[in-house]
Amino acid sequence: MIKVTIFNEYKHEQNNEKAIAVYPDGIHNVLKGFLECDEISVRCVTLFDKELNIKEDIGLSDEVLSNTDVLIWWGHVAHTKVPDDVVERCHKHIMDGMGAIFLHSAHHSKLFKKLMGTTCNLKWRFPSKERLWNINPAHPIMQNVPEYFDIGLEEMYGERFDIPTPDELLMIGAFDGYEVFRAACTFQRGYGKVFYFQPGHETNPTFYIPEVQTIIKNAVYWAKPLYRQSFGAPKYEKVEL
Amino acid sequence: MIKVTIFNEYKHEQNNEKAIAVYPDGIHNVLKGFLECDEISVRCVTLFDKELNIKEDIGLSDEVLSNTDVLIWWGHVAHTKVPDDVVERCHKHIMDGMGAIFLHSAHHSKLFKKLMGTTCNLKWRFPSKERLWNINPAHPIMQNVPEYFDIGLEEMYGERFDIPTPDELLMIGAFDGYEVFRAACTFQRGYGKVFYFQPGHETNPTFYIPEVQTIIKNAVYWAKPLYRQSFGAPKYEKVEL
Amino acid sequence: MIKVTIFNEYKHEQNNEKAIAVYPDGIHNVLKGFLECDEISVRCVTLFDKELNIKEDIGLSDEVLSNTDVLIWWGHVAHTKVPDDVVERCHKHIMDGMGAIFLHSAHHSKLFKKLMGTTCNLKWRFPSKERLWNINPAHPIMQNVPEYFDIGLEEMYGERFDIPTPDELLMIGAFDGYEVFRAACTFQRGYGKVFYFQPGHETNPTFYIPEVQTIIKNAVYWAKPLYRQSFGAPKYEKVEL
Amino acid sequence: MIKVTIFNEYKHEQNNEKAIAVYPDGIHNVLKGFLECDEISVRCVTLFDKELNIKEDIGLSDEVLSNTDVLIWWGHVAHTKVPDDVVERCHKHIMDGMGAIFLHSAHHSKLFKKLMGTTCNLKWRFPSKERLWNINPAHPIMQNVPEYFDIGLEEMYGERFDIPTPDELLMIGAFDGYEVFRAACTFQRGYGKVFYFQPGHETNPTFYIPEVQTIIKNAVYWAKPLYRQSFGAPKYEKVEL
Repeated sequence: MIKVTIFNEYKHEQNNEKAIAVYPDGIHNVLKGFLECDEISVRCVTLFDKELNIKEDIGLSDEVLSNTDVLIWWGHVAHTKVPDDVVERCHKHIMDGMGAIFLHSAHHSKLFKKLMGTTCNLKWRFPSKERLWNINPAHPIMQNVPEYFDIGLEEMYGERFDIPTPDELLMIGAFDGYEVFRAACTFQRGYGKVFYFQPGHETNPTFYIPEVQTIIKNAVYWAKPLYRQSFGAPKYEKVEL
Repeated sequence: MIKVTIFNEYKHEQNNEKAIAVYPDGIHNVLKGFLECDEISVRCVTLFDKELNIKEDIGLSDEVLSNTDVLIWWGHVAHTKVPDDVVERCHKHIMDGMGAIFLHSAHHSKLFKKLMGTTCNLKWRFPSKERLWNINPAHPIMQNVPEYFDIGLEEMYGERFDIPTPDELLMIGAFDGYEVFRAACTFQRGYGKVFYFQPGHETNPTFYIPEVQTIIKNAVYWAKPLYRQSFGAPKYEKVEL
Repeated sequence: MIKVTIFNEYKHEQNNEKAIAVYPDGIHNVLKGFLECDEISVRCVTLFDKELNIKEDIGLSDEVLSNTDVLIWWGHVAHTKVPDDVVERCHKHIMDGMGAIFLHSAHHSKLFKKLMGTTCNLKWRFPSKERLWNINPAHPIMQNVPEYFDIGLEEMYGERFDIPTPDELLMIGAFDGYEVFRAACTFQRGYGKVFYFQPGHETNPTFYIPEVQTIIKNAVYWAKPLYRQSFGAPKYEKVEL
Repeated sequence: MIKVTIFNEYKHEQNNEKAIAVYPDGIHNVLKGFLECDEISVRCVTLFDKELNIKEDIGLSDEVLSNTDVLIWWGHVAHTKVPDDVVERCHKHIMDGMGAIFLHSAHHSKLFKKLMGTTCNLKWRFPSKERLWNINPAHPIMQNVPEYFDIGLEEMYGERFDIPTPDELLMIGAFDGYEVFRAACTFQRGYGKVFYFQPGHETNPTFYIPEVQTIIKNAVYWAKPLYRQSFGAPKYEKVEL
């Protein structure tokens, strides 16, 4: 059983009519809906409660994270409201092997920026049509993904995307203004596997698209750690051979 | 002084009216025209002679290659006519440090495929408009290149481009059918620096575009070896510390 | 079921007393012995027959390769005796997704050099003690591999190893003359996954070491293709979005 | 003229007799001594003053950093005493193109860890002999560096070194307990070029070794930005082609 924890900001889907229309129960519940199966269990946590207050306790405790194989992150306007100690704790667990998937505007989350070490800035424009190209069909995250697929309307995210060179570049997105974007990228940080995926604007039904669901589900299988392990900066004794 | 040798197939510019109109003296002479300067000397060799016969001696001897810092390659329909021993000789010099720049359809040259170890296959379509995005403005090959520039008409080269992951991805091209392409890539092979650049179809005036010229000239400076050095597979004697 | 085909040169184990003592039935049969299980079936082919003649038909036909998920290669003194058409055929299948594992002196096989595009030269010395360090414990090939393990006697292979930068560096070897070596490396070429592993000299019982067996078996699981797929260089028709 | 700023902690060289004996004027002044030349100007700043108090103003203001092409960092026991706003400011300038060189125990500085996004943990042991191998003789930082050189006594830093895969691996160190280490690594972060180099313990005369000086000086030339440029996360207007 792979244990997934989804963090969702959960603001737009409570105060923006267009987002409410698309994701009435929140983006997290749509993600949960297509991920949950015999092999995957899903827990959801949100930053905002049902009264649109920021929760005092988000629910990303050490205990929860120790019982999380893969953390999925969606956030946008309230990145700075995520407490620093939560970010540190999530980062620590990724170092020890927890997988992490960052969707769309999570590129500017504290946690993703801490993992990348860069600004993660990019160009943006709304709306645009998008076509996504499969650059590495042999990769497990691209299993059953066609050579390209389209997203009717999506937010344009354009290069230059200020990230370190990804370990693997899996998809490039093309937009209706001739913009391009490294839309699916993998990174290893510590023992943790990290995946960034660009589509997923809050007012578009992107997370209902079968190919998008396939990619995120594949990424869960890929990001699951072989094992969790803490490592330090040990003084080492010489061992003769 | 950087010594550049340009290999050009030189067939289209002698038997295709559109190519003749754009490059009446051959692509090689346009490349030579903008490269040659106080710091760069240029020699040109061609596969076809002025009677459209394939030359018995192309002119890529060991002596010529030993006096070449950077080899530039343009070929298209006659890749298989380049003798294997010429390919082996060029490859050997790249291993020892000679730089190499492959333009457009040179992706299917024997030499490039030998360096890559893959098919180098891609999708193609003609004609298309193209916009090229600068993914790494801090790279020496991208010096003085804007964040993007356009090529009015160019051949579409589309992903998946079957190459090993480049050491550095410098530009992504976008085409009018929503296709994308890793259009400027670097690779180190042996001690040699290798650069692939996608634009440059024989019937379009691509090589007259200032940004294209800037990139190719920058690549010459970048690909120049620090020194040339042959290395073998030596039996090694233990050295105490 | 993962279908493995082992190619072994099979000369030393028939004409070198020390190699015969360690591998009386050939290296291939020791590899087969620890690989074969409910999930893995193994076929062996050799270059030399039991009379020490080079076989006219090695047994690496298109039919055999089409039924091979992962090809394992051991060769040393007779690399040049492997026919070019066999090399081309194996390369084609790797491009289409067949996995490939190259052991020890297979670094100088025609097939590995064709995949790398470089000389694959290195320093060598015999014998040496070796300690191998696990650089990426989170990688599937390193599953159940300790932070380091020792090989009592092994051939020293030393840097500079003339290969392209590996996609992933998994182990570094240290030798008793202070030499070092990138001893376990992965590369993707086409749709095929390629693994190089340095230990495995013919006169040492390296392939009986449990950690070595774990690594090679893990590599078989890792290199297995998701699917096999031939791709060409297609003319492409514009598709509207 | 390349403008270098050296940050040195400057504690050991004032309160540890062995360090005082080797670096009586501080590590920074030895670095300055071999770097300064017609093409390179050097400014030094330190964390501790001559009374061994931590300075209120280290001297890494925006003005100083704006006038710095390459920042060199040596720190060890007082990493946590470097104020966060100094770290943020240095990071911002690296994003905009300032080069950065981290020596030895600077692997655990706040700034390096922020750039890497990982713990940067490693094994350590003192003392050890070390031999450093040149893995990429064609790289500008390796210019005039032999295939290997020795450091009589140095602190052992051993794998696993918890960093992201370097863009380029230039040297591997071997120690007298068969330990190994990726001793010279490059990383691009933002527009800035980052170099990490392992040797340089405070009680050993490592920085007087000619090959070490050559490498650090080469790294200064390599890390110098082509230009400095701030970039944001701009809303972008569609541009027709």
